[in-house]
Amino acid sequence: MRESKRLIIDMDDVMADTSQSILNLYNSEFNTSYHKEQFWGNNLWDDGLKENYLTVRHKLYEPGFFRNVTVMPDAIEVVKKLHEQHEVFIVSAATEFPNSLKEKHEWLEEHFPFIHWKNLVLCGDKSIVKGDVMIDDHEKNLKVFEGQTLLFDAIHNQSLEGYQRVKSWKEIARELL
Amino acid sequence: MRESKRLIIDMDDVMADTSQSILNLYNSEFNTSYHKEQFWGNNLWDDGLKENYLTVRHKLYEPGFFRNVTVMPDAIEVVKKLHEQHEVFIVSAATEFPNSLKEKHEWLEEHFPFIHWKNLVLCGDKSIVKGDVMIDDHEKNLKVFEGQTLLFDAIHNQSLEGYQRVKSWKEIARELL
Repeated sequence: MRESKRLIIDMDDVMADTSQSILNLYNSEFNTSYHKEQFWGNNLWDDGLKENYLTVRHKLYEPGFFRNVTVMPDAIEVVKKLHEQHEVFIVSAATEFPNSLKEKHEWLEEHFPFIHWKNLVLCGDKSIVKGDVMIDDHEKNLKVFEGQTLLFDAIHNQSLEGYQRVKSWKEIARELL
Repeated sequence: MRESKRLIIDMDDVMADTSQSILNLYNSEFNTSYHKEQFWGNNLWDDGLKENYLTVRHKLYEPGFFRNVTVMPDAIEVVKKLHEQHEVFIVSAATEFPNSLKEKHEWLEEHFPFIHWKNLVLCGDKSIVKGDVMIDDHEKNLKVFEGQTLLFDAIHNQSLEGYQRVKSWKEIARELL
Protein backbone atom coordinates (compact mmCIF):
# COMPACT_ATOMS: atom_id res chain seq x y z
CA MET A 1 0.00 0.00 0.00
CA ARG A 2 1.27 3.45 -0.90
CA GLU A 3 1.96 6.20 1.63
CA SER A 4 -1.07 8.33 2.55
CA LYS A 5 -0.86 11.79 1.04
CA ARG A 6 -2.87 14.97 1.25
CA LEU A 7 -4.54 15.40 -2.14
CA ILE A 8 -5.88 18.76 -3.33
CA ILE A 9 -8.55 18.08 -5.95
CA ASP A 10 -10.22 20.74 -8.11
CA MET A 11 -13.94 20.67 -8.94
CA ASP A 12 -14.62 22.52 -12.23
CA ASP A 13 -13.38 20.59 -15.28
CA VAL A 14 -11.81 17.95 -13.01
CA MET A 15 -14.54 16.41 -10.82
CA ALA A 16 -17.29 18.26 -12.71
CA ASP A 17 -17.73 18.59 -16.46
CA THR A 18 -18.19 22.36 -16.28
CA SER A 19 -17.09 23.21 -19.84
CA GLN A 20 -19.74 20.93 -21.27
CA SER A 21 -22.34 22.47 -18.94
CA ILE A 22 -21.40 25.93 -20.23
CA LEU A 23 -21.83 24.65 -23.78
CA ASN A 24 -25.21 23.20 -22.83
CA LEU A 25 -26.27 26.70 -21.66
CA TYR A 26 -25.03 28.08 -24.95
CA ASN A 27 -26.78 25.42 -26.99
CA SER A 28 -30.01 26.03 -25.17
CA GLU A 29 -29.75 29.82 -25.70
CA PHE A 30 -28.72 29.81 -29.35
CA ASN A 31 -30.25 26.56 -30.56
CA THR A 32 -26.88 25.00 -31.40
CA SER A 33 -25.51 21.58 -30.52
CA TYR A 34 -21.85 22.12 -29.68
CA HIS A 35 -19.91 19.49 -27.79
CA LYS A 36 -16.68 20.33 -25.99
CA GLU A 37 -14.54 18.09 -28.23
CA GLN A 38 -15.15 20.66 -31.00
CA PHE A 39 -13.26 23.28 -28.95
CA TRP A 40 -10.25 21.13 -28.13
CA GLY A 41 -7.19 23.37 -27.71
CA ASN A 42 -9.26 26.55 -27.34
CA ASN A 43 -10.53 28.67 -24.52
CA LEU A 44 -14.31 28.62 -24.90
CA TRP A 45 -14.58 32.36 -24.31
CA ASP A 46 -11.56 33.62 -26.22
CA ASP A 47 -11.97 31.64 -29.37
CA GLY A 48 -15.15 29.70 -29.66
CA LEU A 49 -18.03 31.64 -28.22
CA LYS A 50 -16.56 35.12 -28.26
CA GLU A 51 -19.48 36.75 -30.01
CA ASN A 52 -21.99 35.70 -27.39
CA TYR A 53 -19.62 35.81 -24.43
CA LEU A 54 -21.65 38.06 -22.16
CA THR A 55 -25.00 36.43 -22.83
CA VAL A 56 -23.76 33.08 -21.63
CA ARG A 57 -21.10 33.94 -19.08
CA HIS A 58 -23.37 36.02 -16.86
CA LYS A 59 -25.50 32.90 -16.43
CA LEU A 60 -22.67 31.37 -14.40
CA TYR A 61 -23.45 33.96 -11.71
CA GLU A 62 -27.14 33.02 -11.59
CA PRO A 63 -28.53 30.50 -9.11
CA GLY A 64 -28.61 26.91 -10.29
CA PHE A 65 -25.70 26.64 -12.72
CA PHE A 66 -23.10 25.01 -10.48
CA ARG A 67 -25.68 22.86 -8.67
CA ASN A 68 -26.47 20.96 -11.85
CA VAL A 69 -23.11 20.36 -13.48
CA THR A 70 -22.54 16.75 -14.63
CA VAL A 71 -20.02 14.63 -12.76
CA MET A 72 -16.92 13.72 -14.79
CA PRO A 73 -16.79 10.03 -15.87
CA ASP A 74 -15.34 7.68 -13.18
CA ALA A 75 -14.77 10.58 -10.76
CA ILE A 76 -17.04 9.21 -8.02
CA GLU A 77 -15.51 5.74 -7.95
CA VAL A 78 -11.91 6.94 -8.08
CA VAL A 79 -12.30 9.80 -5.56
CA LYS A 80 -13.95 7.30 -3.18
CA LYS A 81 -10.95 4.99 -3.40
CA LEU A 82 -8.51 7.90 -3.09
CA HIS A 83 -10.44 9.05 -0.01
CA GLU A 84 -10.05 5.61 1.57
CA GLN A 85 -6.29 5.64 1.10
CA HIS A 86 -5.33 9.33 1.18
CA GLU A 87 -6.49 12.55 2.83
CA VAL A 88 -8.67 14.19 0.17
CA PHE A 89 -9.42 17.92 0.12
CA ILE A 90 -11.69 19.38 -2.54
CA VAL A 91 -10.45 22.89 -3.33
CA SER A 92 -12.55 25.01 -5.67
CA ALA A 93 -11.95 28.58 -6.86
CA ALA A 94 -15.54 29.61 -6.17
CA THR A 95 -15.60 32.99 -4.45
CA GLU A 96 -15.96 34.80 -7.80
CA PHE A 97 -19.46 33.27 -7.95
CA PRO A 98 -21.30 33.89 -4.65
CA ASN A 99 -24.27 31.74 -5.65
CA SER A 100 -21.99 28.83 -6.40
CA LEU A 101 -20.80 28.52 -2.80
CA LYS A 102 -23.79 26.71 -1.31
CA GLU A 103 -24.43 24.96 -4.62
CA LYS A 104 -20.95 23.45 -4.69
CA HIS A 105 -21.45 22.29 -1.10
CA GLU A 106 -24.74 20.62 -2.07
CA TRP A 107 -23.31 19.18 -5.30
CA LEU A 108 -20.49 17.56 -3.34
CA GLU A 109 -22.91 16.24 -0.73
CA GLU A 110 -25.09 14.71 -3.43
CA HIS A 111 -22.41 13.09 -5.59
CA PHE A 112 -19.54 12.60 -3.12
CA PRO A 113 -21.31 12.16 0.25
CA PHE A 114 -18.25 10.45 1.74
CA ILE A 115 -16.33 13.78 1.63
CA HIS A 116 -16.79 15.58 4.97
CA TRP A 117 -17.56 19.31 5.02
CA LYS A 118 -14.22 19.75 6.80
CA ASN A 119 -12.50 18.70 3.58
CA LEU A 120 -14.13 21.27 1.31
CA VAL A 121 -12.31 24.54 0.57
CA LEU A 122 -13.97 27.35 -1.41
CA CYS A 123 -11.45 30.02 -2.26
CA GLY A 124 -10.30 32.43 -4.94
CA ASP A 125 -6.52 32.08 -5.07
CA LYS A 126 -5.19 28.55 -4.60
CA SER A 127 -1.70 29.71 -3.63
CA ILE A 128 -3.14 29.67 -0.09
CA VAL A 129 -3.38 25.86 0.13
CA LYS A 130 -0.74 23.31 0.94
CA GLY A 131 -0.67 19.57 0.40
CA ASP A 132 1.22 16.75 -1.28
CA VAL A 133 -0.51 16.40 -4.65
CA MET A 134 -2.65 18.89 -6.61
CA ILE A 135 -4.95 17.75 -9.43
CA ASP A 136 -6.10 20.78 -11.45
CA ASP A 137 -6.74 21.91 -15.02
CA HIS A 138 -5.25 25.42 -14.69
CA GLU A 139 -1.57 26.32 -14.83
CA LYS A 140 -2.12 29.33 -12.52
CA ASN A 141 -3.01 26.89 -9.73
CA LEU A 142 -0.39 24.23 -10.42
CA LYS A 143 2.53 26.61 -10.81
CA VAL A 144 2.20 28.03 -7.27
CA PHE A 145 1.77 24.61 -5.64
CA GLU A 146 4.75 23.19 -3.77
CA GLY A 147 3.98 19.47 -4.07
CA GLN A 148 3.44 17.04 -6.94
CA THR A 149 1.15 18.32 -9.69
CA LEU A 150 -1.16 16.50 -12.09
CA LEU A 151 -2.63 18.52 -14.97
CA PHE A 152 -6.13 17.29 -15.73
CA ASP A 153 -6.63 17.29 -19.48
CA ALA A 154 -9.11 19.99 -20.57
CA ILE A 155 -10.07 21.79 -23.75
CA HIS A 156 -8.27 24.98 -22.69
CA ASN A 157 -4.93 23.44 -21.61
CA GLN A 158 -3.98 21.42 -24.70
CA SER A 159 -0.94 23.56 -25.50
CA LEU A 160 0.37 23.61 -21.94
CA GLU A 161 3.65 21.78 -21.43
CA GLY A 162 5.88 21.01 -18.46
CA TYR A 163 3.27 19.24 -16.33
CA GLN A 164 2.38 15.58 -15.92
CA ARG A 165 -0.91 15.34 -17.81
CA VAL A 166 -3.70 12.93 -16.81
CA LYS A 167 -6.46 12.32 -19.33
CA SER A 168 -9.04 10.59 -17.16
CA TRP A 169 -9.91 9.57 -13.61
CA LYS A 170 -8.81 6.02 -14.47
CA GLU A 171 -5.35 7.40 -15.16
CA ILE A 172 -5.38 9.21 -11.80
CA ALA A 173 -6.30 5.88 -10.16
CA ARG A 174 -3.26 4.22 -11.73
CA GLU A 175 -1.06 7.09 -10.56
CA LEU A 176 -2.23 7.44 -6.95
CA LEU A 177 -3.83 4.17 -5.83
CA MET B 1 8.30 49.97 6.83
CA ARG B 2 7.98 46.36 7.85
CA GLU B 3 8.29 43.44 5.45
CA SER B 4 5.06 42.48 3.67
CA LYS B 5 3.63 39.23 5.02
CA ARG B 6 0.76 36.94 4.14
CA LEU B 7 -1.77 37.28 6.96
CA ILE B 8 -4.46 34.66 7.60
CA ILE B 9 -7.32 36.35 9.46
CA ASP B 10 -10.31 34.55 10.97
CA MET B 11 -13.85 35.96 10.80
CA ASP B 12 -15.96 34.63 13.70
CA ASP B 13 -14.96 36.14 17.06
CA VAL B 14 -12.05 37.96 15.42
CA MET B 15 -13.40 40.26 12.66
CA ALA B 16 -17.00 39.57 13.67
CA ASP B 17 -18.50 39.60 17.17
CA THR B 18 -20.18 36.22 16.68
CA SER B 19 -20.41 35.22 20.36
CA GLN B 20 -22.40 38.34 21.16
CA SER B 21 -24.65 37.71 18.17
CA ILE B 22 -25.35 34.21 19.49
CA LEU B 23 -26.21 35.73 22.86
CA ASN B 24 -28.49 38.20 21.11
CA LEU B 25 -30.37 35.26 19.57
CA TYR B 26 -30.61 33.69 23.01
CA ASN B 27 -31.78 36.91 24.62
CA SER B 28 -34.43 37.38 22.01
CA GLU B 29 -35.66 33.77 22.40
CA PHE B 30 -35.67 33.60 26.19
CA ASN B 31 -36.24 37.23 27.09
CA THR B 32 -32.88 37.56 28.87
CA SER B 33 -30.22 40.25 28.55
CA TYR B 34 -26.89 38.40 28.65
CA HIS B 35 -23.74 40.10 27.47
CA LYS B 36 -20.64 38.10 26.53
CA GLU B 37 -18.55 39.55 29.35
CA GLN B 38 -20.70 37.49 31.75
CA PHE B 39 -19.38 34.30 30.16
CA TRP B 40 -15.71 35.20 30.25
CA GLY B 41 -13.62 32.01 30.54
CA ASN B 42 -16.50 29.76 29.49
CA ASN B 43 -17.64 28.08 26.36
CA LEU B 44 -21.13 29.45 25.75
CA TRP B 45 -22.56 26.02 24.94
CA ASP B 46 -20.79 23.87 27.52
CA ASP B 47 -21.28 26.05 30.54
CA GLY B 48 -23.53 28.98 30.04
CA LEU B 49 -26.44 28.12 27.82
CA LYS B 50 -26.33 24.34 28.09
CA GLU B 51 -30.00 23.92 28.94
CA ASN B 52 -31.19 25.66 25.80
CA TYR B 53 -28.33 24.54 23.58
CA LEU B 54 -30.34 23.05 20.74
CA THR B 55 -32.94 25.80 20.57
CA VAL B 56 -30.34 28.43 19.91
CA ARG B 57 -27.59 26.54 18.11
CA HIS B 58 -29.78 25.27 15.28
CA LYS B 59 -30.49 28.92 14.43
CA LEU B 60 -26.87 29.25 13.29
CA TYR B 61 -27.78 26.97 10.38
CA GLU B 62 -30.73 29.12 9.33
CA PRO B 63 -30.47 31.86 6.70
CA GLY B 64 -29.59 35.30 8.00
CA PHE B 65 -27.50 34.67 11.09
CA PHE B 66 -24.01 35.16 9.69
CA ARG B 67 -25.12 37.97 7.36
CA ASN B 68 -26.00 40.18 10.32
CA VAL B 69 -23.19 39.66 12.80
CA THR B 70 -21.71 42.89 14.22
CA VAL B 71 -18.22 43.93 13.18
CA MET B 72 -15.63 43.80 15.99
CA PRO B 73 -14.50 47.25 17.24
CA ASP B 74 -11.69 48.81 15.15
CA ALA B 75 -11.55 45.78 12.82
CA ILE B 76 -12.40 47.72 9.63
CA GLU B 77 -9.80 50.44 10.13
CA VAL B 78 -7.01 48.06 11.14
CA VAL B 79 -7.69 45.41 8.48
CA LYS B 80 -7.71 48.20 5.88
CA LYS B 81 -4.24 49.32 6.97
CA LEU B 82 -2.98 45.74 7.17
CA HIS B 83 -4.32 45.17 3.64
CA GLU B 84 -2.34 48.19 2.40
CA GLN B 85 0.89 46.85 3.84
CA HIS B 86 0.50 43.08 3.83
CA GLU B 87 -1.25 40.39 1.79
CA VAL B 88 -4.46 39.74 3.72
CA PHE B 89 -6.45 36.51 3.38
CA ILE B 90 -9.70 36.06 5.28
CA VAL B 91 -10.03 32.38 6.21
CA SER B 92 -13.26 31.25 7.82
CA ALA B 93 -14.29 27.76 8.95
CA ALA B 94 -17.69 28.00 7.30
CA THR B 95 -18.48 24.78 5.46
CA GLU B 96 -20.30 23.37 8.52
CA PHE B 97 -22.96 26.03 7.82
CA PRO B 98 -23.98 25.93 4.11
CA ASN B 99 -26.16 29.03 4.40
CA SER B 100 -23.28 30.99 5.87
CA LEU B 101 -21.16 30.69 2.72
CA LYS B 102 -22.84 33.36 0.59
CA GLU B 103 -23.66 35.39 3.70
CA LYS B 104 -20.02 35.59 4.74
CA HIS B 105 -19.12 36.66 1.21
CA GLU B 106 -21.77 39.42 1.36
CA TRP B 107 -20.82 40.43 4.90
CA LEU B 108 -17.20 40.87 3.84
CA GLU B 109 -18.23 42.83 0.76
CA GLU B 110 -20.37 45.15 2.87
CA HIS B 111 -17.95 45.85 5.70
CA PHE B 112 -14.55 45.17 4.10
CA PRO B 113 -15.12 46.06 0.40
CA PHE B 114 -11.38 46.50 -0.15
CA ILE B 115 -10.84 42.73 0.31
CA HIS B 116 -11.01 41.04 -3.12
CA TRP B 117 -12.99 37.80 -3.54
CA LYS B 118 -9.67 36.14 -4.42
CA ASN B 119 -8.60 36.68 -0.81
CA LEU B 120 -11.56 34.94 0.84
CA VAL B 121 -11.26 31.28 1.88
CA LEU B 122 -14.24 29.34 3.22
CA CYS B 123 -13.14 26.00 4.58
CA GLY B 124 -13.63 23.48 7.36
CA ASP B 125 -10.14 22.50 8.48
CA LYS B 126 -7.59 25.31 8.54
CA SER B 127 -4.59 22.97 8.46
CA ILE B 128 -4.94 23.33 4.66
CA VAL B 129 -3.78 26.97 4.57
CA LYS B 130 -0.30 28.40 4.59
CA GLY B 131 0.91 31.91 5.31
CA ASP B 132 3.17 33.96 7.56
CA VAL B 133 0.85 35.06 10.38
CA MET B 134 -2.45 33.58 11.59
CA ILE B 135 -4.86 35.58 13.78
CA ASP B 136 -7.47 33.24 15.27
CA ASP B 137 -9.39 32.58 18.48
CA HIS B 138 -9.17 28.76 18.38
CA GLU B 139 -6.22 26.64 19.44
CA LYS B 140 -7.17 23.91 16.93
CA ASN B 141 -6.38 26.36 14.11
CA LEU B 142 -3.28 27.98 15.60
CA LYS B 143 -1.59 24.74 16.63
CA VAL B 144 -1.47 23.37 13.06
CA PHE B 145 -0.22 26.63 11.53
CA GLU B 146 3.45 26.82 10.58
CA GLY B 147 3.97 30.60 10.85
CA GLN B 148 3.59 33.20 13.60
CA THR B 149 0.36 32.93 15.58
CA LEU B 150 -1.71 35.56 17.38
CA LEU B 151 -4.47 34.33 19.68
CA PHE B 152 -7.40 36.73 19.55
CA ASP B 153 -8.84 37.10 23.04
CA ALA B 154 -12.29 35.48 23.31
CA ILE B 155 -14.62 34.29 26.05
CA HIS B 156 -13.84 30.63 25.33
CA ASN B 157 -10.02 30.85 25.24
CA GLN B 158 -9.26 32.55 28.56
CA SER B 159 -7.48 29.53 30.04
CA LEU B 160 -5.39 28.84 26.94
CA GLU B 161 -1.66 29.39 27.39
CA GLY B 162 1.40 29.19 25.17
CA TYR B 163 0.23 31.65 22.52
CA GLN B 164 0.81 35.37 22.06
CA ARG B 165 -2.58 36.85 23.02
CA VAL B 166 -3.98 40.02 21.43
CA LYS B 167 -6.92 41.68 23.16
CA SER B 168 -8.08 44.09 20.48
CA TRP B 169 -7.57 45.18 16.88
CA LYS B 170 -5.56 48.15 18.17
CA GLU B 171 -3.11 45.70 19.67
CA ILE B 172 -2.89 43.86 16.34
CA ALA B 173 -2.12 47.19 14.66
CA ARG B 174 0.78 47.76 17.05
CA GLU B 175 2.07 44.26 16.35
CA LEU B 176 1.83 44.16 12.56
CA LEU B 177 1.83 47.73 11.20
